[in-house]
Amino acid sequence: MAGEPVQNFKVVFQPDGAEVSVPRGSTLLEACSLAGIAVDAVCGGEAKCGRCKVRPTGRFQASPSPLVSKEEADAGIVLACLTTVEGDISVEIMPRARIGKHQILTKSVEEIPHVISPWVQKKYVELPPPTLTDNLGDLERLLRGMNRKGLCVPLDTIRSLPRVMREKDWKVTASVTDLENAREVTDVDPGDTSDHLLGVAVDIGTTTVVVDLVDLRTGKTLRTGSDYNRQTSRGEDVIARMIFAEERGVSELKLLVRQTINLIISSLVKQEAAERKRPLKNVDVVAASIAGNTVMTHMFAGVDTRYIRLEPYVPASYNIPCLKAVEVGLGINPAARVRLFPARAGYVGGDVVADVLASGMHLTEELSMLIDVGTNGEIVLGGKDWMTTCSCSAGPAFEGGEVSCGMRAMEGAIDKIRINDDWTTTYHVIGDGPPTGICGSGLIDLIAEMYSKGVVDRKARIRGQEGDRIQATDSGAQFVIERKEKMGEYARADLVVTDADLQNLLRTKAAIYGACSVLMKKSDVEWDSISNLIVAGGFGSHLDLERAILMGMFPDIPREKYRFIGNGALGGARLALISAKKRKEVSSIFEKMTYIELSTDTQFYDEFSSSLFIPHTDLARFPSHPAQTNHQREQK
Amino acid sequence: MAGEPVQNFKVVFQPDGAEVSVPRGSTLLEACSLAGIAVDAVCGGEAKCGRCKVRPTGRFQASPSPLVSKEEADAGIVLACLTTVEGDISVEIMPRARIGKHQILTKSVEEIPHVISPWVQKKYVELPPPTLTDNLGDLERLLRGMNRKGLCVPLDTIRSLPRVMREKDWKVTASVTDLENAREVTDVDPGDTSDHLLGVAVDIGTTTVVVDLVDLRTGKTLRTGSDYNRQTSRGEDVIARMIFAEERGVSELKLLVRQTINLIISSLVKQEAAERKRPLKNVDVVAASIAGNTVMTHMFAGVDTRYIRLEPYVPASYNIPCLKAVEVGLGINPAARVRLFPARAGYVGGDVVADVLASGMHLTEELSMLIDVGTNGEIVLGGKDWMTTCSCSAGPAFEGGEVSCGMRAMEGAIDKIRINDDWTTTYHVIGDGPPTGICGSGLIDLIAEMYSKGVVDRKARIRGQEGDRIQATDSGAQFVIERKEKMGEYARADLVVTDADLQNLLRTKAAIYGACSVLMKKSDVEWDSISNLIVAGGFGSHLDLERAILMGMFPDIPREKYRFIGNGALGGARLALISAKKRKEVSSIFEKMTYIELSTDTQFYDEFSSSLFIPHTDLARFPSHPAQTNHQREQK
Repeated sequence: MAGEPVQNFKVVFQPDGAEVSVPRGSTLLEACSLAGIAVDAVCGGEAKCGRCKVRPTGRFQASPSPLVSKEEADAGIVLACLTTVEGDISVEIMPRARIGKHQILTKSVEEIPHVISPWVQKKYVELPPPTLTDNLGDLERLLRGMNRKGLCVPLDTIRSLPRVMREKDWKVTASVTDLENAREVTDVDPGDTSDHLLGVAVDIGTTTVVVDLVDLRTGKTLRTGSDYNRQTSRGEDVIARMIFAEERGVSELKLLVRQTINLIISSLVKQEAAERKRPLKNVDVVAASIAGNTVMTHMFAGVDTRYIRLEPYVPASYNIPCLKAVEVGLGINPAARVRLFPARAGYVGGDVVADVLASGMHLTEELSMLIDVGTNGEIVLGGKDWMTTCSCSAGPAFEGGEVSCGMRAMEGAIDKIRINDDWTTTYHVIGDGPPTGICGSGLIDLIAEMYSKGVVDRKARIRGQEGDRIQATDSGAQFVIERKEKMGEYARADLVVTDADLQNLLRTKAAIYGACSVLMKKSDVEWDSISNLIVAGGFGSHLDLERAILMGMFPDIPREKYRFIGNGALGGARLALISAKKRKEVSSIFEKMTYIELSTDTQFYDEFSSSLFIPHTDLARFPSHPAQTNHQREQK
Repeated sequence: MAGEPVQNFKVVFQPDGAEVSVPRGSTLLEACSLAGIAVDAVCGGEAKCGRCKVRPTGRFQASPSPLVSKEEADAGIVLACLTTVEGDISVEIMPRARIGKHQILTKSVEEIPHVISPWVQKKYVELPPPTLTDNLGDLERLLRGMNRKGLCVPLDTIRSLPRVMREKDWKVTASVTDLENAREVTDVDPGDTSDHLLGVAVDIGTTTVVVDLVDLRTGKTLRTGSDYNRQTSRGEDVIARMIFAEERGVSELKLLVRQTINLIISSLVKQEAAERKRPLKNVDVVAASIAGNTVMTHMFAGVDTRYIRLEPYVPASYNIPCLKAVEVGLGINPAARVRLFPARAGYVGGDVVADVLASGMHLTEELSMLIDVGTNGEIVLGGKDWMTTCSCSAGPAFEGGEVSCGMRAMEGAIDKIRINDDWTTTYHVIGDGPPTGICGSGLIDLIAEMYSKGVVDRKARIRGQEGDRIQATDSGAQFVIERKEKMGEYARADLVVTDADLQNLLRTKAAIYGACSVLMKKSDVEWDSISNLIVAGGFGSHLDLERAILMGMFPDIPREKYRFIGNGALGGARLALISAKKRKEVSSIFEKMTYIELSTDTQFYDEFSSSLFIPHTDLARFPSHPAQTNHQREQK
C-alpha cells in the first residue's frame, strides 16, 4: 500500500548481544554492517563466495544457495546476503564467517628521531586587550602576539576568534600547522591548552586499519588501535571494491573507511582520557598523517578509482593535496590538516612510500630491497641515489583467498605447521581452538614441509603415495591436513590442501620472486650486492624466514641481511607526523622512485615461469637449499 | 491542535503581480522579503520607524500603531510588520514604503590597464592518452601537458579529472587562478572552453549591491547590475544590522547578502547569454573580487560583528583569506576563488581600500585627499609614501535618515531644488512624478539655497519671517518645501524641513569637514598642498559641488582639483580582477595606511564644533564664499 510506513524489526547478534533495527526486507548482511559486525563477504554480498554463513532464528526469508551444504542447511545455516529480515530475529554468525579477533600487525618499529619537529605546534600567548589607541582586529592582535610572520589563517579560525579571544581574557593557545609553503593557524583555543597536542598516524589497509595516537609534544605513541576495514563487507580485495564503486558509486566505500578510522580514533582518545584522567577530546587531535594503497586513499578522499582497475591502471592522481579533517569527514578537530602519502602508481601506493620512509633505505649508499607482501606484492630496490619499484599481482593466496583451506590470520587459523614422518601433522592454531583453515604463514610452512617430506615435487604437484593422507579426487590429488572430526561443530569436511591450491600458492611465490628478479635485472644489480633485504607488512612478521626461502619466495642471501620492519606504512605515517625532515623526505622518495610496469613485461614472464619451481629452475640461485636431496627422492 | 499542518495562504503584491505562499500568521513584511520585494523598514521590522506602510485586502490581522495616521488608517493603510496573514490576500505597497527603482550609482570610471593579467587564466591542452609505458596519473598527465611548475590542485578538481579528461578524448581546458604563493588549477573543463572566461566584481554596500560581469580575456565589463541589499529589511544601517546579528545570529544576514549578490549575478549571466547567444552559465564565472565595508564583508563571510559596534570597535579580522565560492555560498563556479578587499579598521573597510586603488592616489608623489560619503564618511589623505585614514560617523542624514523629509535617491525624491525670491520652490523629482521626499543631493541644495536666500542663518537656524512658507510649531520652526495637495494621493502633510532636520544636516556636514580638517592637522598638511580632491561613492556623483562647498561640507579649494571617481569600491574590485599589478597594490595600500581613531579625539571635537556653521567659524577657510553678504543680512 502506498504511503504505508516501512516496518522495522530488531536483529540481535549472538553471542555479542549487539542489536540493530532494520526495515523489513533488509538482508542480514546489511544488518551486520549496520551493527558494525565484520562479516566475511569476499564477493561483496553477491552470493558468490559462500562465506557469510549465519544461523538465524525468528522470521526471515532465505534463498537457497549451492554454497550451503545439505548438512548446513539442515542445521539452519544460510547465507546472510541471501536472507531478508521479516520479523524480529536473533542471528548466530558462523565462526568462519566472522571476521573476529585476529592477529593484526599494528606494531611498527617505533623510532623517534633525535630532534622532533611535529607537524603542528602550539603556542600560548597572553595578549593585551584592545583599547581605542590599540584597536587592531582580533586576528591581527593574535598574529602580533605570536610574533611570527607569514602565518595564514583559514576562515573558520577567524570566525572563532571574537568568542575564543575574549573567553579567557585574551589568553589563547594557537595550533600552528607546518604547510609546505606557509604556516597555518589551524585552530585557536581559549586559555592555555598547550599540554594537549595529539595527532594520529593511520595505515589504511585493504583489510585492516591501524591508528597510532601520538603525543606530538614528545613524538611518542600513546596507544595503538586497529579494526577491520568496514569496506570488507563490500568486497574483500581492492578489485572487488573498485567494481562495487563502479556499480554503486564510491560514496558508500568512502563513508565505510572513514567510519572505521573514526571509531578507532574515538576509542583511543577515550581510553587515553580515562586512563590518564585527562580531559582529552577528539578535537584535541589536530593532525592526521595517512598512508594506504592507491585505491584506499582514493576511496578515502572520495575519488573515482575506475581507471586504476583497467589497463593502463591510471589513478586520478598520485598526490592528494593536504586536506582538512572536515573535508574528509574525519572525526578529529575539523580544522586539523590531513596529509596522505603520495602514491607512485596505481598499484604502488602511499603505503609503499611510507614503508621506504620508515625503512630509511632512501638515506644510505648501500643497496637495499624492500618487499611488502599483501594481496599485491610491492618491491622497491635502490638507495640514496635511485630507486625502482614495481608491483606484482601476487593474488590473495597468502591472505586466504583462492586457496580452499586458506583464511586470514585470525582465530581458528593454523599459523605454524609441521608434517611428521608418518605424514600426520602437528600445528598451532591462533586462539588455541579447533582449526578452521590456514593463514599465510601456515601455508608457507605447509608447502615447505610438504616439499621437504616428499609429499610434493619441485613443481608443487602432489606426488606422495596415495593413502590415509593423500587422496585422489575428480579434480586431482589432495593432502589431508586435519580430519573433520577434530575441527569443531560446523566442519563439513576434512581440512585439505588440493593440487589446485598448491599451484595457486606456487604462482604467488613465483610472482613475488619473479618481480624481485626482474627489478634486479632491469636495474642491472646482482643479488650479492644487496646489503639489506627489508620485509614490511603484516605477512612478514609472522613468517618463518627459512621456510619462505626454502620454498623460493624470498632470495637465498645471508640471513643477517634480512630486516623486518613490521607495519612500515604506519611507521612512516608516524614519522611524517613528528619530523619536518621526514616530511621533506617523502617528496624526495616520491621523486626518486622509477616505476616499472610488469603487467605486460616479457622479461617478467620469463622470470615468473622460472620461479614456478621449488625453489627455482636455477638451483644455483638457492645455494643453501637442500634441493638436490629432494630432487633425488623425486627420481625414485 | 498538535500535529495539524500549518495552513499556507497566497499573498499577491500589487501592482507587480508577484505572488508568494506563506504560512498563516506570517507578517506581511516577511511575505515581502520572501517575494523579493524590498520594503523600507529601517527599524528591522520592530514597528518603530513606521515606514513599511501597505494596504492589504483580504483576511489579515493588523495591530494599530501611532505611526499610522487616522486618515491612513481610514484608507486601510497598516504597517506590514504589524500585520499577519490570515487568508489569501492582495497587498498594495505604499510608494514611500517601496524601495523601488532608483538611482544606484553603479558606474565606476572604467579604466582598463594597458596590460591585463586576469586573476584567472585558461589554458587549453590536448593530452596523449595513457598507455602502459606512459601511465601517469590523470592529474600528473594534465600538469605535464600544461608545462607549468608549482601548480596546486584542490581535491574537488582531482575528483573531477577521471570523468572530465576522458569526456572529450583527453582535450581539456584548465582554469588557473593566481594565488599569492602559488597558482591553483581551480577547475578543469572537457574540450576547449577558453572562449568563456568570466569574473565578477562586487561592491557590497549597506544599501545597494552592485556587480560588474567582466570578461577576463579582455578586462572589459560586459554588463553591470545592482539591487538593494536584502539585509535592508533587517535594519537600514550597519548599526541596526549588527544589533540584529547580536540578537539573532549573523546567519540570516549572511544569507540575505549572498542571496542579493547571487540574484544579480544570475540575471547578468542570463542577459549576457541571451543577448550574445552564447551558452554561458553561472559556472563559467570563475573569480569574484569583492569590496565592502567591514561590517558587510564580515557578514558576507559569516563572521561575528559584535565587537565592531562596541568600543574600541574591533573587527574579527582586517583580512579575510582568499575563499572558495562554495564556502561562502556564491552561485558561481563552486571552485572559483573569492577575494575580499582587506579592511583597515572597523569603520574603514575594504571599500575604502578599493576606492584608493581605483583612484590611483597611492601611486603619485602628489598629495591627495579622498572622501567617500555614505552613512559614514571615510577620508584618506596621502600619496605614494604615506596615507592616513579616518572615519566619521556622519550619520544617515544625507541618505534619508534622521531627517523628516529625507529619503533615498529613488523615485519620488527631489534631487535638485532652488528657492525662488518669493520663497516658493522649483525642483526636480526622480521619475518625474509628485515628490515624496528629498534625497541627499537635494538636501545639500536645499540647505545651501535656504542659506543664500536668508531663510537660515550661519548656524542653519530658520530665521526668515514667519508666513506662508515659514511656520512655527511646538517643536520649532519649519520651512514648507511643497504643499500636501501637490504631493499625490497618500500625502498626509506638507513636505517640510524642520529646524531639527537642519541641525542634523549641519552636524553631518560638520563631521565630514571636521574629519578632513583633523586628518590634515594630524598629518601636518595645509589645504593648498592638496593636489587632488577625490570624491567617491554614490553621493558624490549627483552632487552640486558649488553648493556642497557653499554649505561648508567640502573644502574651498580650486575646483579643478576635484575629481569624481563614482563607485570606487566597484572600480577597485574590477581592477583587482584583471591586473596582477593592482592585486599586489592592494596589500601595499593596506600596509601604508595609518588609521586614526576620531571617536574620542578632542582635536576632532574642536574641528567639528568649528564646522557647525555655514560654511565654518573661520571664514578665511572659504575664500570664495559669499558669507560676508549673508552675515550682513543676518545682522539686520
